[in-house]
Amino acid sequence: MNNIVVNDLYDYPNRKIYQFKEGFKFSLDSILLAEFCKIKSSKDIIIDFCCGNAAIPLIISTKHKNKIYGVEIQPEIAKLANQSVEYNDLNGQISIINDNVLNILQYFDRESIDIITCNPPYFKINGTSLINDNEIKSIARHEITINLEQIIEIGSKLLKNNSYFYMVHRTQRLEEIISIFNKYNFSIKELQFVYTKKATADLVLIKALKGGKTGLKVNPPLYTNNLKTYQNIFEEK
Amino acid sequence: MNNIVVNDLYDYPNRKIYQFKEGFKFSLDSILLAEFCKIKSSKDIIIDFCCGNAAIPLIISTKHKNKIYGVEIQPEIAKLANQSVEYNDLNGQISIINDNVLNILQYFDRESIDIITCNPPYFKINGTSLINDNEIKSIARHEITINLEQIIEIGSKLLKNNSYFYMVHRTQRLEEIISIFNKYNFSIKELQFVYTKKATADLVLIKALKGGKTGLKVNPPLYTNNLKTYQNIFEEK
Repeated sequence: MNNIVVNDLYDYPNRKIYQFKEGFKFSLDSILLAEFCKIKSSKDIIIDFCCGNAAIPLIISTKHKNKIYGVEIQPEIAKLANQSVEYNDLNGQISIINDNVLNILQYFDRESIDIITCNPPYFKINGTSLINDNEIKSIARHEITINLEQIIEIGSKLLKNNSYFYMVHRTQRLEEIISIFNKYNFSIKELQFVYTKKATADLVLIKALKGGKTGLKVNPPLYTNNLKTYQNIFEEK
Repeated sequence: MNNIVVNDLYDYPNRKIYQFKEGFKFSLDSILLAEFCKIKSSKDIIIDFCCGNAAIPLIISTKHKNKIYGVEIQPEIAKLANQSVEYNDLNGQISIINDNVLNILQYFDRESIDIITCNPPYFKINGTSLINDNEIKSIARHEITINLEQIIEIGSKLLKNNSYFYMVHRTQRLEEIISIFNKYNFSIKELQFVYTKKATADLVLIKALKGGKTGLKVNPPLYTNNLKTYQNIFEEK
């Protein structure tokens, strides 16, 4: 079990990704978030919170030369991320920090980062929540080592003013997400709802601005069922 | 100017509506909200806040026999509403209260109402907001006599626990809408984004539950451009 394989990173050119044959794998959600994230200056420093095996940094690196940091708490997963970075010869561009996002201010100054991306653990821990038998999967999926409010709070400390926090999450928790972003001085600038198999939208992509003006835009819905590629799906035509 | 005409209420059978030839008219937004509102028991008492010329009560009355109250502050508009009710022979079902929604507890007990609907004034009053020359239109469109927070606060007092507040509003203000609903003990249960001519959604239909559990559902997007009728557009097929 848990033998490591090198897979294609979907159809992204020249990108391979290490993952476990059984267990933790990159998800559609990370691809969508990497595509949703807009990078305007090559000087922008990007941090991907809860980076897993670094799917988001790897995808962003197909389009941008920016410096990207990935933060991953689980040593086994951070190792996969590092192997992927090495395999794709991206050591100069992507650095993996194997630590809890809660400790991020040990690595960076306050208000020093331009863009945060995060595909966080989606599920709360409570009596009724079903935790995965596999501990590695559980930590990736459930709020065991960090929760939503902690992620947004630390993100607010780390980001420069007028900078963006991009997140993918379940629509079920959208109310809470918006209220926590507001609490930590973010306003939601864009929402994009993602419809996969069901009539209702399971996923939402969120673009939150630290400081700055309110005024929300709800983008066209994204239907993933018939997509042949995810590359540049959010580019304006 | 402001001569009164009797128009068809879109394609609703046997419904006519009084409005001003120039000036205040019913809008698509009210039709959508009337269709979005779900009525489960014939005993449910419904109040439509800021009812205008009573488009929402008139549409609901095509499908349900429930008692419906409409509250409208402007005497000229409340008169149109009353004329419409009379013309459609609905005096027994629909009653118009010509007063500010802020005074509603002079008419009803706290926690006595089952459903509230509201198509409120959308625009804040501030230095840059363009207020309409026409005073009647201005009061209907701008937060002159009541604002969003006052509407939700009074709604929370009026509604029974586990009852629904249905609202249509501009997506631009969704963040604020959610945070105010939360403040007054509502959780958002359903959102439905409405796409008219633009790629982004201008309008959102909101179903908020007083008390009860959180857990948001984002419905399929509604495109209004090619609709031939609005009747039963939200019915499950």
